[in-house]
Amino acid sequence: MGERLVVIGGVAAGMSAASQAKRRKPDLEVVVLERGEWVSYGACGMPYNIQDPERRIDDLVVISAERFRTERGIDVRTGHEAIELDLGKRTARVRRPGGESELAFDQLVIATGCRPIRPDWPGMDLAGVFVLHSLDHAQAIKRHLADRSLRRAAVVGGGHIGLEMADVLSARGLAVTLFKRSPELPTGYPEEITRTVGQELARYGVDLRVGVEVLGFEGQGRMERVLTEQGPVDADLVLVAIGVRPEVELARQAGIRLGPSGAIAVDDRMQSSAEGVFAAGDCAEAYHRLLGRGVFLPRGTTANKQGRIAGANVAGADERFRGVLGSSVTKIFSLAVGHTGLTIAEAWAEGLEADSVSIEARTRAHAYPGSRSIAVRLVFEPGGGRLLGAQMAGGEGVAKRLDVVAAALTAGFDVDELAGLDMSYAPPFAPVWDPVLVAANQARKKIRR
Amino acid sequence: MGERLVVIGGVAAGMSAASQAKRRKPDLEVVVLERGEWVSYGACGMPYNIQDPERRIDDLVVISAERFRTERGIDVRTGHEAIELDLGKRTARVRRPGGESELAFDQLVIATGCRPIRPDWPGMDLAGVFVLHSLDHAQAIKRHLADRSLRRAAVVGGGHIGLEMADVLSARGLAVTLFKRSPELPTGYPEEITRTVGQELARYGVDLRVGVEVLGFEGQGRMERVLTEQGPVDADLVLVAIGVRPEVELARQAGIRLGPSGAIAVDDRMQSSAEGVFAAGDCAEAYHRLLGRGVFLPRGTTANKQGRIAGANVAGADERFRGVLGSSVTKIFSLAVGHTGLTIAEAWAEGLEADSVSIEARTRAHAYPGSRSIAVRLVFEPGGGRLLGAQMAGGEGVAKRLDVVAAALTAGFDVDELAGLDMSYAPPFAPVWDPVLVAANQARKKIRR
Repeated sequence: MGERLVVIGGVAAGMSAASQAKRRKPDLEVVVLERGEWVSYGACGMPYNIQDPERRIDDLVVISAERFRTERGIDVRTGHEAIELDLGKRTARVRRPGGESELAFDQLVIATGCRPIRPDWPGMDLAGVFVLHSLDHAQAIKRHLADRSLRRAAVVGGGHIGLEMADVLSARGLAVTLFKRSPELPTGYPEEITRTVGQELARYGVDLRVGVEVLGFEGQGRMERVLTEQGPVDADLVLVAIGVRPEVELARQAGIRLGPSGAIAVDDRMQSSAEGVFAAGDCAEAYHRLLGRGVFLPRGTTANKQGRIAGANVAGADERFRGVLGSSVTKIFSLAVGHTGLTIAEAWAEGLEADSVSIEARTRAHAYPGSRSIAVRLVFEPGGGRLLGAQMAGGEGVAKRLDVVAAALTAGFDVDELAGLDMSYAPPFAPVWDPVLVAANQARKKIRR
Repeated sequence: MGERLVVIGGVAAGMSAASQAKRRKPDLEVVVLERGEWVSYGACGMPYNIQDPERRIDDLVVISAERFRTERGIDVRTGHEAIELDLGKRTARVRRPGGESELAFDQLVIATGCRPIRPDWPGMDLAGVFVLHSLDHAQAIKRHLADRSLRRAAVVGGGHIGLEMADVLSARGLAVTLFKRSPELPTGYPEEITRTVGQELARYGVDLRVGVEVLGFEGQGRMERVLTEQGPVDADLVLVAIGVRPEVELARQAGIRLGPSGAIAVDDRMQSSAEGVFAAGDCAEAYHRLLGRGVFLPRGTTANKQGRIAGANVAGADERFRGVLGSSVTKIFSLAVGHTGLTIAEAWAEGLEADSVSIEARTRAHAYPGSRSIAVRLVFEPGGGRLLGAQMAGGEGVAKRLDVVAAALTAGFDVDELAGLDMSYAPPFAPVWDPVLVAANQARKKIRR
């Protein structure tokens, strides 16, 4: 019998690992266990699928389980859940339709992802109360929205899923109330950006309730009201999006080491504490380039990179994961809001001396039509000038400007180097001094020389 | 008497230098000599001003001469042309309305820019034959376009001004023929991008004639026909945009050293071969970070940076220009086309071993609406993997993706480092594997390990 790789989890990291391993080592037997119905789907695209009633839910599936089997020779088993690992015997106990069985492996990739936090509030089981994590959840929300009598939606949580879904539910014609316990929205952003986000939500009719504690939900058989400290608020549908946790029970029970973040500890080859057992994606830690340690920062991009690296190394390569900066961007109506690297609070929490500057600029040249506003906050060390991070909000060009800063952070640039960057320029795409350069020039003035 | 700085030229580099010097050293007397009527205008915005008949030509002026005088205390003299320098006596001979005079200086910034090449073709003096370099030219073209009987325009030259003006003249309702002598459009771009540009021009009705030599123009008192090797082509208006040369006569006559590129040689403080004489902007060389030498690469961004540095150093600072990568981007109808760093031909010409990869991808996530196509060509060294350059063409996000690569080039990244970059992601802004990362992953396969 040949060598067998078992991959647990068939979304971004799992299918990347399976594909990469099989491509590099065609005689490897690759089995993917996915407890859900779908594999290889773009989970980050779920809100936008929900937005469009005409789109099929499975257009988010990039490559179907059937195509993985027939075209790539990967044995994808949906509806199969790994429930226990024996690393000594190198077997997985698998629950499948109709029973349980054991599956032997030579190498293992754990790509179990993360799971949404479900608070133990009263009313969590009412019809119309949702989380959004898997394609099943997306489909359930979409089916619920087919009821044209719905008028009001509530979103609990102001992370990227909460914000995206406030946008999407508004676009579906519902009056949206967004609840967030802490006063800052989004969390960790400077005041000029949280104010811009608040104004944007208000402009699109979202009733924003920050600093409000949600206590639960109630209704006659179906969702009718959000219960809060400040009284009830009517809602026909509620999305609870208050965070996620790494899905690590299987790994923990098998004795695989977890990191301080709670996710699976891995080296830069994505190998866990157990020889021949890799972990990738949301269930695994990601090495943070600026913090110098593993963190739990679930991202589709990271899952794809880590999965590919794990798969390559299973097949005998020596690929290394280079780490993350926490880069993130979210569409909030006509705005993009995002960050890369550290906020000033994160820098201070690391014991770094950090300062910041904030500028507001236009996205296109002086007098060029269609220009939007963009706010750029840069965080840096005033002694030496090393760049530490950026947060931005604006009407266009935010994501790729963050990526320019991400490259600068990866390179360890100081603000002088960033200010001198030879950026491409034409009036439709930027002012002659790009907002990133304007911010870097401001930062230069605060550097001790 | 206090110290006097004279700045020759009042557009991007000149006014940046004047402003920076005055701000840092308020007791410095700053005189700006500008031979034209306007100062401090965004020359790169001229095509888009011409596009809109309702816009005043002077909305391109960022700060008026009057405001420089009253608000910044800078003695801006329009209609004043420096015609001779005596570096021994430290005087400039100035031609002004009503006569000539001498002006003494302690320090000097030469910011004379560049001038368009005017071929000695027959018919260059016909009404309706234009170049586009100064605001006067833009105004003349705009006035000519006010004649509603115009039907056909010709553009000679396929550089960024020619391409932008083909777009603009089409938008003004004219049938446009674009002539380019060499077969490649834009010059130096790989075939998949020149093909895309050709298709875009055709889609918008531009009659593209590449590999055609223009011989001159003819008409009865006004422009009627472009004469070519292949016969005449009717046109009521023609723009000649076949290149620019640095405006260095004044410097040359004063004995200031020119570099091999023909522009004024400068050190990284923007000082010329003459003590206390600085040069900045299009008339000066720009240090190319990858070529390791000064080049003539006129850009508004570079002019602003160099001008600011020259002005700071006049005032006693020690600011350094960090160099260019040749970064450039041009709007061509619904496309953006640009590059940063070296093309493969440029790399070979430098004696570098270079290889390249070309990918085509989408600008947004799988199934996200509004996605456009983008082509990315990466140039790199197959031994070692050092990144050398990128060329791109696409429907959105090109300029800032070029800037990501510009940051990577500045940092000296290899393609592994670029492929590992933690770019921000959400479906409206990029695929989960950004096109830049897809290209870098392809390039990795061609690296000798």
